[in-house]
Amino acid sequence: MDELPGALGTSASLALRLGQAIFSVASLLFMCLDVEFYSYTAFCFLVTIMGLDIPWSLTLALVDAFSVFVKRPSPQPGIMSIVVIGDWVLSFLTLAAACSTASVADLLITSSGPFCVGKLCSRYQLSAAMAFLSWFLSLASSIFNLWLLPSL
Amino acid sequence: MDELPGALGTSASLALRLGQAIFSVASLLFMCLDVEFYSYTAFCFLVTIMGLDIPWSLTLALVDAFSVFVKRPSPQPGIMSIVVIGDWVLSFLTLAAACSTASVADLLITSSGPFCVGKLCSRYQLSAAMAFLSWFLSLASSIFNLWLLPSL
Repeated sequence: MDELPGALGTSASLALRLGQAIFSVASLLFMCLDVEFYSYTAFCFLVTIMGLDIPWSLTLALVDAFSVFVKRPSPQPGIMSIVVIGDWVLSFLTLAAACSTASVADLLITSSGPFCVGKLCSRYQLSAAMAFLSWFLSLASSIFNLWLLPSL
Repeated sequence: MDELPGALGTSASLALRLGQAIFSVASLLFMCLDVEFYSYTAFCFLVTIMGLDIPWSLTLALVDAFSVFVKRPSPQPGIMSIVVIGDWVLSFLTLAAACSTASVADLLITSSGPFCVGKLCSRYQLSAAMAFLSWFLSLASSIFNLWLLPSL
């Protein structure tokens, strides 16, 4: 296997995965520290997707860390395919959740109803921004892994 | 070039492109026949993206029709790369617009305020559904063209 930066098992990939996990956790915290999120479908969707994203990123970060610091296993095309498909699906879902959250937060702010008590709506916006950053890193990982796949 | 079904210049691709254009036009009509869409950011976003989607799909449908019915030009890797990149970018934007519209329409319905006069909100939902279908076909086109790219 060529040492493609960003593909599974490299230090760049480890950095990407850790970034995804950190942004996902930040997005989840901004959303969940308030208890009102479950009254909006879009926010529940974001929480669900982030709950899928975090374990996925952390598991692959562990695999990368093992590969970087301990021993580089020979890549298995089957496992790589699963990683690529999972990455793409999660990347689409993260984008969908981020867009839903952003548009609902925007609507709540412009409608100027009794929804935005205190700094609540800015927190929703921050949560959406973190989800977008997480999506961006996840897309980068997906593209690098997809690039590597035909050479296996 | 192998005759990969669904790649640029085949009849399957022509069908996919026509489907995208039809669903995009339907989504635009469901949204725009009402004049209130511009008061919501998400709906303006959907209209913008559909306005990009329709000429893109129709242009590529024309290319496919020419290739199927008149004469098959030899594929150029440069042009194929532009088509693949444009497809992916538009596919992501369509997904984003569809999700935003769906979540805002859902919020308007559940908030049961004075927003949904008549059948307005069902029309927003239908528009989002059409945008999702258009995204699905656009994703299929992108995957087929991406698959073809390394063999050029």
